[in-house]
Amino acid sequence: MDEPRILKVLEAVRDGTLGPREAADRLRLLPFEDLGFAKIDHHRALRCGFPEVVFCQGKTVEQVVRIVARLVERKGPVLATRAVPDVFEAVQAEQPEAVYHAAAQAIVVPSEEACAPAGGTVALVSAGTSDQAVAEEARVTAEVMGCPVETFYDVGVAGLHRLLAHAEAITRASVVVVVAGMEGALASVVGGIVNAPVIAVPTSVGYGASFAGLAPLLTMLNSCAAGVGVVNIDNGFGGGYLAALIARAAGQK
Amino acid sequence: MDEPRILKVLEAVRDGTLGPREAADRLRLLPFEDLGFAKIDHHRALRCGFPEVVFCQGKTVEQVVRIVARLVERKGPVLATRAVPDVFEAVQAEQPEAVYHAAAQAIVVPSEEACAPAGGTVALVSAGTSDQAVAEEARVTAEVMGCPVETFYDVGVAGLHRLLAHAEAITRASVVVVVAGMEGALASVVGGIVNAPVIAVPTSVGYGASFAGLAPLLTMLNSCAAGVGVVNIDNGFGGGYLAALIARAAGQK
Amino acid sequence: MDEPRILKVLEAVRDGTLGPREAADRLRLLPFEDLGFAKIDHHRALRCGFPEVVFCQGKTVEQVVRIVARLVERKGPVLATRAVPDVFEAVQAEQPEAVYHAAAQAIVVPSEEACAPAGGTVALVSAGTSDQAVAEEARVTAEVMGCPVETFYDVGVAGLHRLLAHAEAITRASVVVVVAGMEGALASVVGGIVNAPVIAVPTSVGYGASFAGLAPLLTMLNSCAAGVGVVNIDNGFGGGYLAALIARAAGQK
Amino acid sequence: MDEPRILKVLEAVRDGTLGPREAADRLRLLPFEDLGFAKIDHHRALRCGFPEVVFCQGKTVEQVVRIVARLVERKGPVLATRAVPDVFEAVQAEQPEAVYHAAAQAIVVPSEEACAPAGGTVALVSAGTSDQAVAEEARVTAEVMGCPVETFYDVGVAGLHRLLAHAEAITRASVVVVVAGMEGALASVVGGIVNAPVIAVPTSVGYGASFAGLAPLLTMLNSCAAGVGVVNIDNGFGGGYLAALIARAAGQK
Amino acid sequence: MDEPRILKVLEAVRDGTLGPREAADRLRLLPFEDLGFAKIDHHRALRCGFPEVVFCQGKTVEQVVRIVARLVERKGPVLATRAVPDVFEAVQAEQPEAVYHAAAQAIVVPSEEACAPAGGTVALVSAGTSDQAVAEEARVTAEVMGCPVETFYDVGVAGLHRLLAHAEAITRASVVVVVAGMEGALASVVGGIVNAPVIAVPTSVGYGASFAGLAPLLTMLNSCAAGVGVVNIDNGFGGGYLAALIARAAGQK
Amino acid sequence: MDEPRILKVLEAVRDGTLGPREAADRLRLLPFEDLGFAKIDHHRALRCGFPEVVFCQGKTVEQVVRIVARLVERKGPVLATRAVPDVFEAVQAEQPEAVYHAAAQAIVVPSEEACAPAGGTVALVSAGTSDQAVAEEARVTAEVMGCPVETFYDVGVAGLHRLLAHAEAITRASVVVVVAGMEGALASVVGGIVNAPVIAVPTSVGYGASFAGLAPLLTMLNSCAAGVGVVNIDNGFGGGYLAALIARAAGQK
Amino acid sequence: MDEPRILKVLEAVRDGTLGPREAADRLRLLPFEDLGFAKIDHHRALRCGFPEVVFCQGKTVEQVVRIVARLVERKGPVLATRAVPDVFEAVQAEQPEAVYHAAAQAIVVPSEEACAPAGGTVALVSAGTSDQAVAEEARVTAEVMGCPVETFYDVGVAGLHRLLAHAEAITRASVVVVVAGMEGALASVVGGIVNAPVIAVPTSVGYGASFAGLAPLLTMLNSCAAGVGVVNIDNGFGGGYLAALIARAAGQK
Amino acid sequence: MDEPRILKVLEAVRDGTLGPREAADRLRLLPFEDLGFAKIDHHRALRCGFPEVVFCQGKTVEQVVRIVARLVERKGPVLATRAVPDVFEAVQAEQPEAVYHAAAQAIVVPSEEACAPAGGTVALVSAGTSDQAVAEEARVTAEVMGCPVETFYDVGVAGLHRLLAHAEAITRASVVVVVAGMEGALASVVGGIVNAPVIAVPTSVGYGASFAGLAPLLTMLNSCAAGVGVVNIDNGFGGGYLAALIARAAGQK
Repeated sequence: MDEPRILKVLEAVRDGTLGPREAADRLRLLPFEDLGFAKIDHHRALRCGFPEVVFCQGKTVEQVVRIVARLVERKGPVLATRAVPDVFEAVQAEQPEAVYHAAAQAIVVPSEEACAPAGGTVALVSAGTSDQAVAEEARVTAEVMGCPVETFYDVGVAGLHRLLAHAEAITRASVVVVVAGMEGALASVVGGIVNAPVIAVPTSVGYGASFAGLAPLLTMLNSCAAGVGVVNIDNGFGGGYLAALIARAAGQK
Repeated sequence: MDEPRILKVLEAVRDGTLGPREAADRLRLLPFEDLGFAKIDHHRALRCGFPEVVFCQGKTVEQVVRIVARLVERKGPVLATRAVPDVFEAVQAEQPEAVYHAAAQAIVVPSEEACAPAGGTVALVSAGTSDQAVAEEARVTAEVMGCPVETFYDVGVAGLHRLLAHAEAITRASVVVVVAGMEGALASVVGGIVNAPVIAVPTSVGYGASFAGLAPLLTMLNSCAAGVGVVNIDNGFGGGYLAALIARAAGQK
Repeated sequence: MDEPRILKVLEAVRDGTLGPREAADRLRLLPFEDLGFAKIDHHRALRCGFPEVVFCQGKTVEQVVRIVARLVERKGPVLATRAVPDVFEAVQAEQPEAVYHAAAQAIVVPSEEACAPAGGTVALVSAGTSDQAVAEEARVTAEVMGCPVETFYDVGVAGLHRLLAHAEAITRASVVVVVAGMEGALASVVGGIVNAPVIAVPTSVGYGASFAGLAPLLTMLNSCAAGVGVVNIDNGFGGGYLAALIARAAGQK
Repeated sequence: MDEPRILKVLEAVRDGTLGPREAADRLRLLPFEDLGFAKIDHHRALRCGFPEVVFCQGKTVEQVVRIVARLVERKGPVLATRAVPDVFEAVQAEQPEAVYHAAAQAIVVPSEEACAPAGGTVALVSAGTSDQAVAEEARVTAEVMGCPVETFYDVGVAGLHRLLAHAEAITRASVVVVVAGMEGALASVVGGIVNAPVIAVPTSVGYGASFAGLAPLLTMLNSCAAGVGVVNIDNGFGGGYLAALIARAAGQK
Repeated sequence: MDEPRILKVLEAVRDGTLGPREAADRLRLLPFEDLGFAKIDHHRALRCGFPEVVFCQGKTVEQVVRIVARLVERKGPVLATRAVPDVFEAVQAEQPEAVYHAAAQAIVVPSEEACAPAGGTVALVSAGTSDQAVAEEARVTAEVMGCPVETFYDVGVAGLHRLLAHAEAITRASVVVVVAGMEGALASVVGGIVNAPVIAVPTSVGYGASFAGLAPLLTMLNSCAAGVGVVNIDNGFGGGYLAALIARAAGQK
Repeated sequence: MDEPRILKVLEAVRDGTLGPREAADRLRLLPFEDLGFAKIDHHRALRCGFPEVVFCQGKTVEQVVRIVARLVERKGPVLATRAVPDVFEAVQAEQPEAVYHAAAQAIVVPSEEACAPAGGTVALVSAGTSDQAVAEEARVTAEVMGCPVETFYDVGVAGLHRLLAHAEAITRASVVVVVAGMEGALASVVGGIVNAPVIAVPTSVGYGASFAGLAPLLTMLNSCAAGVGVVNIDNGFGGGYLAALIARAAGQK
Repeated sequence: MDEPRILKVLEAVRDGTLGPREAADRLRLLPFEDLGFAKIDHHRALRCGFPEVVFCQGKTVEQVVRIVARLVERKGPVLATRAVPDVFEAVQAEQPEAVYHAAAQAIVVPSEEACAPAGGTVALVSAGTSDQAVAEEARVTAEVMGCPVETFYDVGVAGLHRLLAHAEAITRASVVVVVAGMEGALASVVGGIVNAPVIAVPTSVGYGASFAGLAPLLTMLNSCAAGVGVVNIDNGFGGGYLAALIARAAGQK
Repeated sequence: MDEPRILKVLEAVRDGTLGPREAADRLRLLPFEDLGFAKIDHHRALRCGFPEVVFCQGKTVEQVVRIVARLVERKGPVLATRAVPDVFEAVQAEQPEAVYHAAAQAIVVPSEEACAPAGGTVALVSAGTSDQAVAEEARVTAEVMGCPVETFYDVGVAGLHRLLAHAEAITRASVVVVVAGMEGALASVVGGIVNAPVIAVPTSVGYGASFAGLAPLLTMLNSCAAGVGVVNIDNGFGGGYLAALIARAAGQK
């Protein structure tokens, strides 16, 4: 653990160049992480593969380029979501290794730091073709975090047989991400079939009384199947990230 | 057709005891139905079996007793919904032939007027045991209207195999009523299996983000399966009534 | 019934080339429909005339063209809703027989498979001229499904006499579709006049406290007239589809 | 006009016992009404018959008794709404002339000050028997304010002919109050029939997606008929009060 | 009264060329208005000055031009609301006498039929400059209906003294229209000052938790001052129309 | 795998006593699970420790007793949530080994089937003492499923130091459950500290603009920290169940 | 500053009995406050008079008694809100100096630690008598914190003159708390009169479209007068607490 | 105090040229402020530095220019919020001393009237970079009002250490403004750290279930930390204004 500042203070105390009371005052002024609280230092090893993330929507092209550049310096992979092609072109001009996932509208700048792949796998199930952008965002996110993802697209409950045809394959995953708009019933049906944790991602696909995704959100929160956790509407990144955390845990022991 | 008042006026014109202009004035003052508009007279034949309905909730026992008595005089069967046992006892004291359906909290006073049974059938599918009261209200309503009802209770999507085991039987009905609370996904799944019209009845069974039935209501309105019509939350009567209208139409030609 | 795969497996068992246990394993891996569950095979005969449907909104022109082409191969008629003129032109370039219904913004590619017309009829009632696009979507949908539709447009309750003038004609239909925005009171009024099932389609026509169609949606769900089923806001397709299911049932027996 | 304090100040200025600047300071400290602003003094003549009102719900019996006593001293009639029988008994013990309107749950203590009756009339239309309590509150309020009220109860749109049978009588009123729960469509229908101002009172009668009166409230606010003003849910008092203001204005010229 | 069809039927009965029963059948088929129900004939005299109204928003220029032309033939004045300048130019090309009220975005085509002005007056109070478009729509509407309107703009409660400075003038009106966005408190304050009916028009002026006018709408519905009726958000037309009905009634007796 | 019925059919085919086509017909009529679809058989081994669950709220004591008895026969542990003491007494009379967790209002009937404990651990963090009932429901659920649970109660963000004092311990868990009412900010703060998956359980603790748990629900769905999944309001069972699924996965490899 | 543990560690380092690295490890394990972060130690002097608070609603009498006892030991005054009389009696049995404020439903256990009174004053303005309980909770809270409070009750905007009569007195306060239900317009009116900060407390007083306080909450958030901050519905404690913080700041310099 | 009109009236009374009764009549007709009510005159001294404010959104460039010109004549500084660059250019053409704050989209026209700076200070804390526009609006507003502002940007709770690193500095302010979107948890965390009043400004930054700022708004209203007041969504101006009022009060004594 690299804790220069707190150690310097303590060594000064040991060396008698700083009194205990003055040391206490100085410690209080240190940035939080220097005091060695959990997250920053403790888990660095576990966190290889965790992307630094930029949510591009509502930012200018210049802002995204600048933020990506700063994050690339920290060595982790960088994931930029909701990035239109123009943003990618500008990012790529500075980061030639950047890759664009068009369907997901996501940019990935890979990291040099090698990292063990996750032990578990993610099954990614989506209801309709319109849900694909959100699903792809989830897929790219989970893959950047080192998790193998198997996709089962366009298996909505209106054609139940399509889903059931894949039931066996889906049940083999460590965690299942379900992406669905309209009424979002797919999460309950999948939750009734598998024993793995299900992460449900409601989408704003639909109209009228879907109320921009409120309908599938409520559906998923009220799922009669146990074992379903829900993220925000259209939050493919969040669904993929949470699934990857679980899949990595599955492979950890 | 019994239209005494309009005929009397017209006969007076014929007999010369009333001028056309005075007749026009008088006609305008007649109650609407005397003028022979559609519903009242026209459809009497079709409507045998249609119950006169009393919604008991929020009424005193005395009010229900009085209203039932008045409706019984019109000869049609009477259906009183949301009737607690005390209400039934008071009604039965005056109407000895009244029958109580405890699970549905419904009183039926049968009619003497015979009526051809509906040609179609109703499949009644419900998700959980807590939805049973609403489902039973639908069943009693449809049966009073002369429709055979086959029930498939406790076949929610969390145990999809239970529903699928009955898929064949359900598809044989002329119309399917789906009663479900929680997230209400059952309506979409059934809608994806059958080709008959589906009447979806959301229930207030659930808690938290079910918001007293809002969640299944939105689910059903946004159903990705076509052919689903929705009635009010907990409106078992409405679901059974609409289904019976459809089942009767199915048998009409 | 054409069930090649399940039969092949069973014949192999009969012929002794496959053991029962291996056969059980193999059956489990077959796509769902091959196992002969209800919908696919059972109702093929009933389903002639049922359109394959494409919801164009939010899809690119290329996507719609490709999907329509795939569906045309399945032989059923194809209905593409919410299609702007550009989409139609692109579709027509490949499917010369495609027809455009401008007011409904719907494309129909007719099917060669002849199909008996529905036995029942649909009355289509709309409140204002702004509701017409949704009403037309309902009309085209029902007609594609072989149902005769009689339209009663611009008969909102603010001019009640216009509606009442058509009351008799409306009551003759097997099922009535009511399309209304603003406060949506028309559904209740029609429901009070006819004995047929009423399918209510709320529209987003209105402003302010209409909350994009929430007001007529709630109105229709709370209708004091029994026998009213509701579909999603602006869902003309859904209203027409459900009505056609009912009208076909009416003519079936 | 009785304006002792302001006059005393001004007379002191006239008499030279108070300088203008000191007078300005003192005026600023007077209670607002003493300065003669509009409402208090100006309209006293017009306001005879206007009740002082106590909303009893959420108050103790003692509080109501005390407030009523204080208001009786001001000589105007007193109207206490949402008063259960116990409250009435306690009030009557002190105010023997108090009258209880049971259906409206309203107490009226009449005033000795004679007052010309309103020149206009109020038509009071309600949809169902459950709306009667709210309607009666409106009736009692308007009558206390000197307005003749003609009631048309139980004429909901599900039985349109009942309403139309009274159309002519309703159109004769100066102002129409419409009280309706469920979907509240009655306000639009009445608004389409009459040319007088319509005051719409939504009630919480209903269940499920009525959301305690939200449905009829939105219906009435979005009425496709012009000339409809809306008051709060279950606010029979407010509807009757506003109607009486209009009916009095109608008779004023 | 011109009632050709009903009279012709009755005269045929008188002349013996039509039997009473056949006449009853024929009457039932007549359009509603021919039967002489209230609105159409009864109130024609009262309705002079009442505009025929076109809500232009969401209609094409051509549609508006066509509808206006049709309405002009009915002789009443025509009011077209939410009309942008382009619409006006197209209308004026056909109706040279049309007048454009730019701030209100309203077109008025005056009527030749003279009509007695209303006996009462309208005070029109608005909170901020952004509410002016809605207020002007109310003003134009009321004036077209023959009501003198006095405006008190920009007198929101944040500067209470501006409102109070006009209190006396406002209290002289027969009816007060209050137009306010943001929190809409102005309606309550005015309602506390005047004894006349108050028509409150919430506007969508505001942002954030105004929720597009929901905040002032709720404020106005819950007004602690009695005598306030509310219309839809941004419904200047509705507010002006209802106020004009009241002002005309005030002058009628 | 025990699949008697499907095997019997196939053996009959093999033996020539049943033709392939008759066999296909018969297979279609078998209950779904007999056909060997995924969930039922496949995962039996993994599911040891998974409770059969009864949601007692809204059920009679007799119903709960009967359902528990039926589930006990299936050999798995039984978990009855939202069970008041009376329910427990009645259950215990029949199931003497039943245990009552008073704070969680949960009954557990342990199973004889031994089952390997989960490899991972659950940290259970709650904000206030009023959230304890929901938290305890989560704890009991996870423990029944074989997961060690470490609790950190009463560490809401208003006293951030209490939470931070436990930061290190919390970060050691495989999955963290956060239970919080009021504004629910605790989930975001914990999500910002740990790298493990966070399951957030909003509670209805609060008043006013908490809207019965809507506030913390929205907070948790919008968490600015990635890796947070949300379950329904007050759904301690759901939170504990999902956490246990994850903790078991963590220990599986 | 009393910081025993951190000092002990540092003195051990100085004394050479603990190495710097071991010291760093130990520091990380200390409870947060021992590290000297801001709140706990820094502000102790300022915080005299700040109450420890117990929200009694939803807690048992025993729980309240136990929590109060624990807090009394910390020497600060204790404020228990939403305490019914029974709770007070139980608390008083152990804390004889406890005082009950019945209208506020608040218990205060005074502290022995003397504390300088606040330099500023609080004006407490409420709209109706039903808002008094919330207002009194605010008053007791602010007074416990050493702030003089002047109350102006029952000065709602429906009787504007009552408020204006006190305008001068209200404007003299350092901060104004406005408590109002119904439509909550009072906050805007007061905000338009005074230059001091206004803390607005919406109450759930009202019915129907007040939606349990949502209406005044939105009103206050959208106040057209600048300088208004809002707390939760019925949160008299929060309003009084925030006002006291401001009043104390006003007196600090 | 400059009160020409009231003094002229009173001097005329003193001089005998106006009788007391006539004087009373005339006083009643004076504009409100002339009567010397509190705000206008009383607080002029305190209000130096208070900006006159123009909300530019929804106004034309010309309107803004005209209003700014009028306000500049009143001598106070002018603050124009939500002003795009085009608006600034037009304003600057007439007011060369105008300054543009691009990030805040705010124009400031400084005042010549010198004014003592506030005694207290404002700490301005924001969660993410997207919240910066709202935060800057708050900063500019407070600075125009003479308050020193220290900013702590981008310290959201997902990286708690960044916030805690500044905890000491933040606690030194007289008042803290917290600007946060997404879930808005930052307000609660800051409220738990500081003893100063906290003004929370929710922003519409976020998507999906943020519902355009509803989520952080509810979070802040339900804050478990006492001492938090909330303003409208995105209302940086309101937050800065209220904070400045408090900071000025802090320096007043």
